[in-house]
Amino acid sequence: MPEHEPLTEREADGLDAHWRALNYLSACQLYLRANPLLSEPLRPEHIKPRLLGHWGTCPGLTLLYTHLNRLIRTRGRRTLGVWGPGHGAAAVLSGAWLEGTYSQLRPDVPRDEEGMRRLFAEFSQPGGVPSHTAPSVPGSIQEGGELGYALAHAFGAAFDDPGLLVCAVVGDGEAETGPLAGSWHANKFLDPVHDGAVLPVLHLNGYKIANPTVLARLPEDELAALMRGYGYDPLFVTADQDTPPVEAHRALAGALDVAMERIDAIQRAAREGGDGARARPHWPMLVLRTPKGWTGPRELDGVPVEDTWRAHQVPLSGVRDDPDRLRQLEQWLRSYRPEELFDEAGRPHPRVLEWVPEGDLRLGSVPEANGGRLLRELPLPGLESCAVAVERPGASSHEPTRELGSFLRELLRRTEERRDFRLFGPDETDSNHLSAVFDATDRDWQAELLPTDQHLGRHGRVLEVLSEHLCQGWLEGYVLTGRNGVFASYEAFTNLVSSMASQHVKWVHSAREVPWRRPVASLNYLLTSHAWRQDHNGFSHQDPGFIDHVLNKSPDVVRVYLPPDTNTLLCVTDHALRTRDTVNVIVAGKHPCFDWLDLDSARDHCARGVGVWEWAGTEHGGNGPDVVLACAGDIPTQETLAAASLLREWLPEVAVRVVNVVDMARLMRHRDHPHGMADTEFDALFTRDRPVIFAYHGYPWLVHRLVYGRTVHPQLAVRGYRESGSTTTPFDMVVRNEMDRYHLVMDVIDRTEGLGARAATVRQRAAGLRERHHRYILEHGEDMPEVTEWRWPGR
Amino acid sequence: MPEHEPLTEREADGLDAHWRALNYLSACQLYLRANPLLSEPLRPEHIKPRLLGHWGTCPGLTLLYTHLNRLIRTRGRRTLGVWGPGHGAAAVLSGAWLEGTYSQLRPDVPRDEEGMRRLFAEFSQPGGVPSHTAPSVPGSIQEGGELGYALAHAFGAAFDDPGLLVCAVVGDGEAETGPLAGSWHANKFLDPVHDGAVLPVLHLNGYKIANPTVLARLPEDELAALMRGYGYDPLFVTADQDTPPVEAHRALAGALDVAMERIDAIQRAAREGGDGARARPHWPMLVLRTPKGWTGPRELDGVPVEDTWRAHQVPLSGVRDDPDRLRQLEQWLRSYRPEELFDEAGRPHPRVLEWVPEGDLRLGSVPEANGGRLLRELPLPGLESCAVAVERPGASSHEPTRELGSFLRELLRRTEERRDFRLFGPDETDSNHLSAVFDATDRDWQAELLPTDQHLGRHGRVLEVLSEHLCQGWLEGYVLTGRNGVFASYEAFTNLVSSMASQHVKWVHSAREVPWRRPVASLNYLLTSHAWRQDHNGFSHQDPGFIDHVLNKSPDVVRVYLPPDTNTLLCVTDHALRTRDTVNVIVAGKHPCFDWLDLDSARDHCARGVGVWEWAGTEHGGNGPDVVLACAGDIPTQETLAAASLLREWLPEVAVRVVNVVDMARLMRHRDHPHGMADTEFDALFTRDRPVIFAYHGYPWLVHRLVYGRTVHPQLAVRGYRESGSTTTPFDMVVRNEMDRYHLVMDVIDRTEGLGARAATVRQRAAGLRERHHRYILEHGEDMPEVTEWRWPGR
Repeated sequence: MPEHEPLTEREADGLDAHWRALNYLSACQLYLRANPLLSEPLRPEHIKPRLLGHWGTCPGLTLLYTHLNRLIRTRGRRTLGVWGPGHGAAAVLSGAWLEGTYSQLRPDVPRDEEGMRRLFAEFSQPGGVPSHTAPSVPGSIQEGGELGYALAHAFGAAFDDPGLLVCAVVGDGEAETGPLAGSWHANKFLDPVHDGAVLPVLHLNGYKIANPTVLARLPEDELAALMRGYGYDPLFVTADQDTPPVEAHRALAGALDVAMERIDAIQRAAREGGDGARARPHWPMLVLRTPKGWTGPRELDGVPVEDTWRAHQVPLSGVRDDPDRLRQLEQWLRSYRPEELFDEAGRPHPRVLEWVPEGDLRLGSVPEANGGRLLRELPLPGLESCAVAVERPGASSHEPTRELGSFLRELLRRTEERRDFRLFGPDETDSNHLSAVFDATDRDWQAELLPTDQHLGRHGRVLEVLSEHLCQGWLEGYVLTGRNGVFASYEAFTNLVSSMASQHVKWVHSAREVPWRRPVASLNYLLTSHAWRQDHNGFSHQDPGFIDHVLNKSPDVVRVYLPPDTNTLLCVTDHALRTRDTVNVIVAGKHPCFDWLDLDSARDHCARGVGVWEWAGTEHGGNGPDVVLACAGDIPTQETLAAASLLREWLPEVAVRVVNVVDMARLMRHRDHPHGMADTEFDALFTRDRPVIFAYHGYPWLVHRLVYGRTVHPQLAVRGYRESGSTTTPFDMVVRNEMDRYHLVMDVIDRTEGLGARAATVRQRAAGLRERHHRYILEHGEDMPEVTEWRWPGR
Repeated sequence: MPEHEPLTEREADGLDAHWRALNYLSACQLYLRANPLLSEPLRPEHIKPRLLGHWGTCPGLTLLYTHLNRLIRTRGRRTLGVWGPGHGAAAVLSGAWLEGTYSQLRPDVPRDEEGMRRLFAEFSQPGGVPSHTAPSVPGSIQEGGELGYALAHAFGAAFDDPGLLVCAVVGDGEAETGPLAGSWHANKFLDPVHDGAVLPVLHLNGYKIANPTVLARLPEDELAALMRGYGYDPLFVTADQDTPPVEAHRALAGALDVAMERIDAIQRAAREGGDGARARPHWPMLVLRTPKGWTGPRELDGVPVEDTWRAHQVPLSGVRDDPDRLRQLEQWLRSYRPEELFDEAGRPHPRVLEWVPEGDLRLGSVPEANGGRLLRELPLPGLESCAVAVERPGASSHEPTRELGSFLRELLRRTEERRDFRLFGPDETDSNHLSAVFDATDRDWQAELLPTDQHLGRHGRVLEVLSEHLCQGWLEGYVLTGRNGVFASYEAFTNLVSSMASQHVKWVHSAREVPWRRPVASLNYLLTSHAWRQDHNGFSHQDPGFIDHVLNKSPDVVRVYLPPDTNTLLCVTDHALRTRDTVNVIVAGKHPCFDWLDLDSARDHCARGVGVWEWAGTEHGGNGPDVVLACAGDIPTQETLAAASLLREWLPEVAVRVVNVVDMARLMRHRDHPHGMADTEFDALFTRDRPVIFAYHGYPWLVHRLVYGRTVHPQLAVRGYRESGSTTTPFDMVVRNEMDRYHLVMDVIDRTEGLGARAATVRQRAAGLRERHHRYILEHGEDMPEVTEWRWPGR
């Protein structure tokens, strides 16, 4: 297939030396804690007590590491490796150590015998480095633990980085996952003008933990059809146990050269040719078939190991106790001829390093893999330009996400040249009322365009595909390589990516502990079209559980914001876009929402994260309130203020305090979350002993959890979403979940002493109004037209 | 393409009448609350106040409904429709009403004018039926809300039902999701001998909510390559706005005939031919391309509607207020010529029903769509046959999942003929120590077989694919059509399907409220390889949050069990397999675990779900304990019993009570969960005022949430997983998360008064032992060899 000069023997030999060195280093990481150069015969005490790690995937990854080096040296293009196969860290660590990156970042692991010993000893050991490509692995932007995201990360990394090549290695295990299967179509969104290139390498080693893989057992023509159907132009490189390494090197080098020439041709044509009649490019991809655990033990006690699932983890076990096994291990390790690879001090021979690139071109040093090195502050527009005017609370209303759309439009305009901000979402930007962004940019679309299309374009920076997994993976890749973005989604369907969110939180949490990792932009979620307003969609679209999910994860990373109106949403988003190394979850509605705070008040309120809204309460003097009405979320805030307003009229003698919570973590104790409040501060807001009726956006338990341990906790009653929903009206939703204003009023009556006969009268009145509204809905199929008369005094 | 006699004009005409009727009924559901037959000119009061629903997808679904009728009538094969496209309920409800199924199940909605009016009025209205194919829709086994699972459900339904045809309609929006993209490969697991057939229909109507779809914008050869790459033999039927309906009917009928003949040929060859050299069949699939919102308004104010995203929901809005719009609507509805379709009483003309099948062959009546009709009790093996002998607590140990494997093996043997039980998992049956099942059956595998393969076979009933989404979707489809199964997974990666789990819980919850839905088998999860024993894998594999996730959902459906040892795991699984209409989450380890209870005790304990383990405590007389040590989960139980044993020696004067929890919902109040305990019962176990130190498997907050409101709650301290993990030893894990025996002992010291100077001595001793162990781990890379000397008296 390659029409190129084949590698000379000398060249192939140099590549093979590098590959052997990586294989040697990888295998030793599984086994050795001493005698790293095999300077003496292996003895049991050189062997780790617990043999952990995954050999099977290593030789394929090392082969690619070696050949990417060659590609970089011959072409000088910055290249980021995305190492998809699970548990491939030993291979990638070997590459980083051999090229010198690792010792540069970890001076305590030098490129010599002692460094080699440390590299081995730390691998998969307590207090050491994990067996998958975690943040501690240089050159990696993805955790190799939970599989399925290599391609999504790779495309995310390539967006808006035209000089970059991302080589995405996809394991054939990973390729069976849904998210990965859906990610192949990401090529319909890769702009050859402004984006870098992604070269997917589907690595077929044939087996998972205990099974063959589906793709490895397809006939080659079927697999080729699949890749062509995904829109790629596939190249095949196949080696089996008996292929001489030099042949494999020649085939792989040739295929990579072809791939690079095709990539160059596509990019050149697009960059020079203009958009005119440009067809969607068919990018190359590579199918690399090599035996699982290649170059490892071929068999054990007559049973095949290499090229079977038995090579998945540690192919030889019991080596400490069984002298035969120990000898087999030594034979295996010596088969790489370490004496030809390293000098006596453990330094690699120059021959081994012949193909290794220099400086930041090394795979372990490429800046994109440590995205904080590239991150710049965003040119955020002033909030004044898009804030809404608020004459008095509740006198006007806006659609919060629509106004946010104007803010994002301005940000997209300001980053038009820099191209370091994008908006991601599953076909819902319009539905979520963020359409203003289309004044500034298009939806990115590289497939066929029709004259009737709107806001679709080749260079758009809004990414829409009906796959939350792809949106999330793209944004992760984009952020981890030094850029910024927001993922806007229907609230319920963020649960689709809750596991991905956990893994990203884990990544950021771990990365913070790695001194050489520079902070990256936070990953920002906008959860809208939320549980309370699924008038069209109903029960399947109602799930506020994503908040609960993320709040179980590392508190140093997770932030949850529930802005109650338009201006607070703007403030919170502005803040989120300035933060680093966190995951910000912002929940806001898209339907008309009363404006409560003008911009200045919104700024103050969001800066504090929680506060008393004096104007809505009826406290007089310094006795504190009789009851606290607390709220978090737009609908709960609306119902709470309506209840406060009704109470002002119906029971003016009850001193009501209204507390609004924007930043959920403020409710926690400081020892449990960096945003947590001290008890004194908490008590000053919520009191120590008064009834607190808390209307909350999601599952009520969460508030109990967050408030747990505060003095007032036994007085807390929480109303929220109780998993009761349907295709119904907004007011029916709050009634069904007993969070409507009338229920809140009755809660206050129930918890307030000394109301006497008035309790019954007011209760009856509230119940009557609720019932009237309910009957109206059943009869008319819609909410009762109702003007809320806010009863608080003017300001 | 069809080599058949084309439809006669009369036949095509009959099909078209049926299709027009369905389109009329579908469109009317979006708009009308009166005047269902258009007996008089439309007036505003005939129109619903809120216009809700999704027209765009309807005409494609109705077309398929019509043609499946023909297929059933001509071939007599039971056919289940899986209606993938979102919000397609109007179309499917129309089909069920027209064929008479709906009126049979809902006698209050007869097949006449008044029934038609009700059908329309209830659609997407408060108290009515949702806009997606929820349980209230006859003939449906999947919620059309969260997209991505149509194919997985279809294959799950087809397994072990050789006479069934499942027609899986996949929308081109849904087709972009990861889970759906990965599901195409399910054909590598469909046994043509024992399973039914799945006929996927990829319905390209071109648009999502606001965007074109990726697959609709591929050239046909690329799409064909994709389908061939997925292993199918695609047939294409294309109609555009100008295609005369009769041509579309002829093309579609022809293609379906071809598809059925190919299916018949595949099944016949496999069923008659034996397994010998049988190659994997290339099943047919159909690509059906029709305009979005076909037959609806072609344009509006000069802007195209039909065949664009603008037809997605309600194509004509404002019809109540705008006489022009109202006239347009009437024109549209009358274009179906309702007077030719229904008589004056609203009864369909015989012509319309010509192709409708009879009885249970009707799509709305097929028994598989109401799986409880087919469900039989499982022939569960007696637990005696696989229980482990327990001489005294802690004297022996077993791997719980390994023993469970024997139980499942026996169950697989007993269901060999019936084929109504399967085990599902992502390539982890061996890794999860369930390998005994392979004595009874193979892993199902229809792709290439090699001589080195083990336990792979054409007729296996263990389904392994590295896609949790596919496993979950298959099991849902299998269970909803009347069969039984278990999904065994690494605990952390069940989070991948947490959203699917929610949707299934919502389905079951809603189905319970539909009188004609019969109970189905519960969906059973086995979460193993859990957070505490990820010695090889580390942080990315540690996430016990699935429990928290499901416990937020409908308590009438969700059950969570944490059996502490082997015999309790057997009892809990045996119970779970007998239950109906629930989702059972069982968490158990695969590593050696001390045996605490013999079979009889295990049965008693599991029946109660929670209980005092007197033998482990040191209570004397009737004063109650000084402290309660509670635990849930295998590792917490082990650490708790170790702590109790240490306390017995070190502080014999402290009266310790050990309480073990198997069924987490028992901790809740009865009003919050049907398994919840009354306060008196709870207080009798946990006391009202003594310190309770609770060691829990997952995030500690959950226990606080469940115990909230109990008198003893302020005395509760919970230890659990605090999101601190790595690749490390088992003991290091409990130390990092402060749940180890020494921490528990110190908790007791901290919470017990009157210990005087002994407090400091014992604390020092515990801390010293913990420190010694910790140092050992860092030095040796493994846990200290330690024989736990249980100090309780013999029984």
